Amino acid sequence: MVLSSISASECPAGKTILASSVAKLYASEIQAGLEKLGRKPKLVGFLSNSDPAARMYADWTAKSYLENGFDFELLEVDKEELEDHIFQANKDVSVDGIMIYFPVFGNRQDQYLQQTVASSKDVEGLTHLYVQNLYHNVRYLDEASTKKSILPCTPLALVKILEYLNAYNMHLPYGNRLYGKTITIVNRSEIVGRPLAALLANDGAVVYSFDVDGVQKFTRGDGIKLRRHQVSDIEIPLQDAAQVSDVVITGVPADSYKFPTEYIKDGAICINFSTAKNFDKDVKSKASLYVPSIGKVTITMLMRNLLRLIENTNVN
Amino acid sequence: MVLSSISASECPAGKTILASSVAKLYASEIQAGLEKLGRKPKLVGFLSNSDPAARMYADWTAKSYLENGFDFELLEVDKEELEDHIFQANKDVSVDGIMIYFPVFGNRQDQYLQQTVASSKDVEGLTHLYVQNLYHNVRYLDEASTKKSILPCTPLALVKILEYLNAYNMHLPYGNRLYGKTITIVNRSEIVGRPLAALLANDGAVVYSFDVDGVQKFTRGDGIKLRRHQVSDIEIPLQDAAQVSDVVITGVPADSYKFPTEYIKDGAICINFSTAKNFDKDVKSKASLYVPSIGKVTITMLMRNLLRLIENTNVN
Repeated sequence: MVLSSISASECPAGKTILASSVAKLYASEIQAGLEKLGRKPKLVGFLSNSDPAARMYADWTAKSYLENGFDFELLEVDKEELEDHIFQANKDVSVDGIMIYFPVFGNRQDQYLQQTVASSKDVEGLTHLYVQNLYHNVRYLDEASTKKSILPCTPLALVKILEYLNAYNMHLPYGNRLYGKTITIVNRSEIVGRPLAALLANDGAVVYSFDVDGVQKFTRGDGIKLRRHQVSDIEIPLQDAAQVSDVVITGVPADSYKFPTEYIKDGAICINFSTAKNFDKDVKSKASLYVPSIGKVTITMLMRNLLRLIENTNVN
Repeated sequence: MVLSSISASECPAGKTILASSVAKLYASEIQAGLEKLGRKPKLVGFLSNSDPAARMYADWTAKSYLENGFDFELLEVDKEELEDHIFQANKDVSVDGIMIYFPVFGNRQDQYLQQTVASSKDVEGLTHLYVQNLYHNVRYLDEASTKKSILPCTPLALVKILEYLNAYNMHLPYGNRLYGKTITIVNRSEIVGRPLAALLANDGAVVYSFDVDGVQKFTRGDGIKLRRHQVSDIEIPLQDAAQVSDVVITGVPADSYKFPTEYIKDGAICINFSTAKNFDKDVKSKASLYVPSIGKVTITMLMRNLLRLIENTNVN
């Protein structure tokens, strides 16, 4: 009698996956990289605003980097002097990597600032060279394929989480392992949502990308022949996209936003990368796997990218 | 008796200066450049939207380029294929310069697109290399000072207009010829308003830069010692800034916006670079010189930049 009164939402089918479970898979790779290097790589982080989320991200980076045997220095500088400090860090041979905790100005000037970081020290993978390589599915920086291009850390973290959750089918050939998967992404920022949609489409998925401007569909056409994705503007309600989606990824930076649980296809994977909680607490009544936040994986990818930057420099 | 009834606004003190008067000053320089080159330089313009202002700009460029003995090709391509076309044009040795008629996507993706143009063909001067040089007051691309950096065409056009109007004092040393001048700019876009403010401050002016985010003051401090400008957030009403400004420059893309004539200091120079008319029809009751639009100078600067790009390539 008691059991029969338990509703579906009180007895969720889904499982929560913590980012730490994914992050720890890369711990040994990172430690091996550090040992091979034989010194502490140094990341410099720049904080030029009082945004509490940016400070939290800075504190997390510091803690993780130091715990893992990296060197980390947080520089808090006036936003008007930030560019000069970045130039100094670009030239400073003791600095291996640079990151900026955005927002700084909170407008397009931030995109300018991103480009002032030397690509050889761009641990976030946001300078034009790397982003362009991502969109064009170019994986190496040189013709001899000795230097891997750097992927933007948050999209990369999401790919690593999807690999861990077996959304990538390892039986399919590399570069096509999301073939047959449909993915809805609510966010099309230049930092995460758009590069993520391109990455996933380059790997074979059909992606519905939602933002305030409308919906875009990222696909690789027939999924086999094309080297890179195609994009088209389409009109499809969020509900219709979600109900055919194996994966739903959200990144809406607003506490008031909740992705409607009833839109989610039974058994879908749901991942939130916003600092706000974009899924309702009953999400697991529908989702099979739910990842409430991804910060720890992102920071792990920042370490991995830093080691890769140093490798690329040493290849020269 | 009739004369005494004429009000100030019916008998304006100010004079309208047409952009064509400024543009024609550069005609002989451009013709000399073409003769020295001995061939027609080719500009390719990309139009990927149905914005009437963008099409008008494209038509103007075509007309001016062809009339002046340049080669011009307008390519209308789907916005999703634009990046591939830019890549082809970057590689095409028959193409000397490339420009994109924005908006394409109308969001931050347009800033990404700007960066896909090879800087050696960037006639608009909007790739990061050139913009960074502008902000840092770096005038050459090489240490030997043989290759001049390219300035963004619209800010450059505004500088040329201010030179023509004698806002630049030729008796002062080069690089400090706006010393003592105060300038109000209503627009702080990354394409015009912000680089313009930096250029003018680098030349010695005190600049009040207004946009929806607030007001910034660009200055070179004491105007002599510093190599480049400094920026600070300040609070000053538009009226107070305007009333101490020798020059007022507007770029608000809205027909409904009018700069209040009563704010203008008697005898100020007023220049509008928006496609909308940002000054009221009584502007000349206050302004000594009024430039209602600047398009022809901008297009002239596009030709000048194209010749400079070719010179820079030939120096190699």
